Amino acid sequence: MTQSRTSATFAPPVMEARRWLAGVDHPADRPLLNVSQAAPVDPPPAPLRQAMADIVLNDADAHLYGPVLGLPALRAEVATQWSASYGGTVTADQVAITSGCNQAFAAAIATLCTEGDEVIIPVPYYFNHRMWLDMSGVKTVPLLTAGGMIPQAADAASLITAKTRAIALVSPNNPCGVEYPAETLHAFRDLARAHGIALIVDETYRDFDSRSGAPHDLFADPAWDDTLIQLYSFSKAYRLTGHRVGAVVASPARLAEIEKFLDTVTICPNQLGQRAALWGMQNLGEWLAGERLEILDRRAAIEENFHLLADKGWELLGCGAYFAYVKHPFAMSSADLAPLLVKEAGVLLLPGTMFMPDDVPGGDSQLRIAFANIDRAGVQTLFNRLSLLEL
Amino acid sequence: MTQSRTSATFAPPVMEARRWLAGVDHPADRPLLNVSQAAPVDPPPAPLRQAMADIVLNDADAHLYGPVLGLPALRAEVATQWSASYGGTVTADQVAITSGCNQAFAAAIATLCTEGDEVIIPVPYYFNHRMWLDMSGVKTVPLLTAGGMIPQAADAASLITAKTRAIALVSPNNPCGVEYPAETLHAFRDLARAHGIALIVDETYRDFDSRSGAPHDLFADPAWDDTLIQLYSFSKAYRLTGHRVGAVVASPARLAEIEKFLDTVTICPNQLGQRAALWGMQNLGEWLAGERLEILDRRAAIEENFHLLADKGWELLGCGAYFAYVKHPFAMSSADLAPLLVKEAGVLLLPGTMFMPDDVPGGDSQLRIAFANIDRAGVQTLFNRLSLLEL
Repeated sequence: MTQSRTSATFAPPVMEARRWLAGVDHPADRPLLNVSQAAPVDPPPAPLRQAMADIVLNDADAHLYGPVLGLPALRAEVATQWSASYGGTVTADQVAITSGCNQAFAAAIATLCTEGDEVIIPVPYYFNHRMWLDMSGVKTVPLLTAGGMIPQAADAASLITAKTRAIALVSPNNPCGVEYPAETLHAFRDLARAHGIALIVDETYRDFDSRSGAPHDLFADPAWDDTLIQLYSFSKAYRLTGHRVGAVVASPARLAEIEKFLDTVTICPNQLGQRAALWGMQNLGEWLAGERLEILDRRAAIEENFHLLADKGWELLGCGAYFAYVKHPFAMSSADLAPLLVKEAGVLLLPGTMFMPDDVPGGDSQLRIAFANIDRAGVQTLFNRLSLLEL
Repeated sequence: MTQSRTSATFAPPVMEARRWLAGVDHPADRPLLNVSQAAPVDPPPAPLRQAMADIVLNDADAHLYGPVLGLPALRAEVATQWSASYGGTVTADQVAITSGCNQAFAAAIATLCTEGDEVIIPVPYYFNHRMWLDMSGVKTVPLLTAGGMIPQAADAASLITAKTRAIALVSPNNPCGVEYPAETLHAFRDLARAHGIALIVDETYRDFDSRSGAPHDLFADPAWDDTLIQLYSFSKAYRLTGHRVGAVVASPARLAEIEKFLDTVTICPNQLGQRAALWGMQNLGEWLAGERLEILDRRAAIEENFHLLADKGWELLGCGAYFAYVKHPFAMSSADLAPLLVKEAGVLLLPGTMFMPDDVPGGDSQLRIAFANIDRAGVQTLFNRLSLLEL
């Protein structure tokens, strides 16, 4: 095929990983442990499913086109809850609803960049961010996180050029799991503002942050929307992955630009999903708090049991939200190791090489474990299998 | 703001038209007649709503991520029904499901074009197609339809350059309503194939075509997928606009490229909408046939009553599917006339200027009437109001 937007990027890693499963049988006493995708495997709780069924039957508007920027009541609810939880001021006209958080990133970049522009993102990165930058004709400028998994604004400063349009962060991080300190986000915000570029903060995993209270106070700055673009997903909190509902929080002027992109690409976010997200925000606060504690317990299980792997030369580089990011001890690239783990250990996970450019060192020895779907017993099983590996 | 993908295009016309309504009161004896948007205003029929409610309650998978290219059963159903109805061979691996038909167009273009490429589209065009080309850095090459509203392949031939990647057609057409003859589509297919470029045919309104049998036999060519990319929407047929489900039918190699785009922009089409579309395809054939007859009757009402407007100097340029495309007799641009009609006639419709570039003549005198939501009495009312206008 000729050169095109899509030819500028790689195949979806999650789909590629799924293909490793083809033709591999898993013995009954060693079923596949799938820790490759960051998604709930259970449907929404029964009361939410019942509310959705009622909407399907009785709310005609839930089946029709709605406003491009989303359901007004959902935009208002996000604004209200955000203002309270972040200790700042977010208004409904600073919130737009998207068809999932990936689309929120795509839309934000479309308002910031054109051919040949640059965006700085820490490595390891979320691969769909890299793919969208590739398809947009935008150069990904990798920000290395020397020593630990927390990027430093001072390191980013030297990467800024006349072509730089944004710095994009994910916190809690995918794939590393690390939670960026408030001071780190402050420093990036100040750097971005000083250079007149945007700071994108993807908080898809905010509901599973281990810290009590707000993870940052960026919204407390009355001028936050001159620099900050926040992204969010309703998928993890309310188990709505199949319904595609996310959000972007930014200035009204930027949302007017985002409206062009969303109208052209999907016309509007799906209406039932938006109503489900609204119902969840209004009724599932306590339930979500319980879900968070369960995820935090699974995280604790990773940390408490990691000695099983540490004894064999593994290192835990980051842990939090849905993810443990680890360094393996084998003399082979993670790109080769990951498919081998399906056969040798009945474990599906993604190699570090999927989260960084080929010319950045480190990915070869790294693996991402998306642990949200395995309980304490599952963590034990996973670590037992990995610790017994001889390659 | 700096130059960006979105700054390269205009604001969504449908949203702009909605803003004309602000502050205008409509007297009780002259309520607003909204013929601006091509969308059902009623929800899906009760049996489909009930089926959807059952799925919400009982099918856990309907709430979770699914394959990027769509629900396998829906892809297979499209393949089977297409093979039968078009008299050709379409296989499930030549079908992908998208989050609406706009996204199908966006994805197709992303696999064909990169910065500076060109795509030929007849004018008047569907404005979201133009917007996506703008945002993709692709030059829109307008194909004029001299004499009637049917474009000619011979006219397109002279517009093809080394940068041309595709010709994109919509039949039945939005905004013109005209149904392209099979020979017209043949000629475009042959032209595209001879130049090694793609022919995109958007058949969003195929279910309301007035002709019996298949509207074309492009799929009967065993090599169809070397050139043809067909787009479809489930929104109009089954009243699923709010659920965002469309399709793209193309070669498996192109769908592998499309997978990159869809994964990055939305991960997967929403799962409930896909199941609703599948249920509709399997159970609503007779119901849809009745819907088609109703739309065809409304079209007949337009044609039978148009003399009311013709007497005042109006012309009917095209009529079919959901649309009548007309020429008004007033000495003012349609861009000024359309907002005025909200106040003066209680009618909301879109001006021809929204469907073509500024430098193409004709749009000034043209208007699109999306008549699908007004019955015979509504057509009478509409024409009475317009025929009484004195400007």
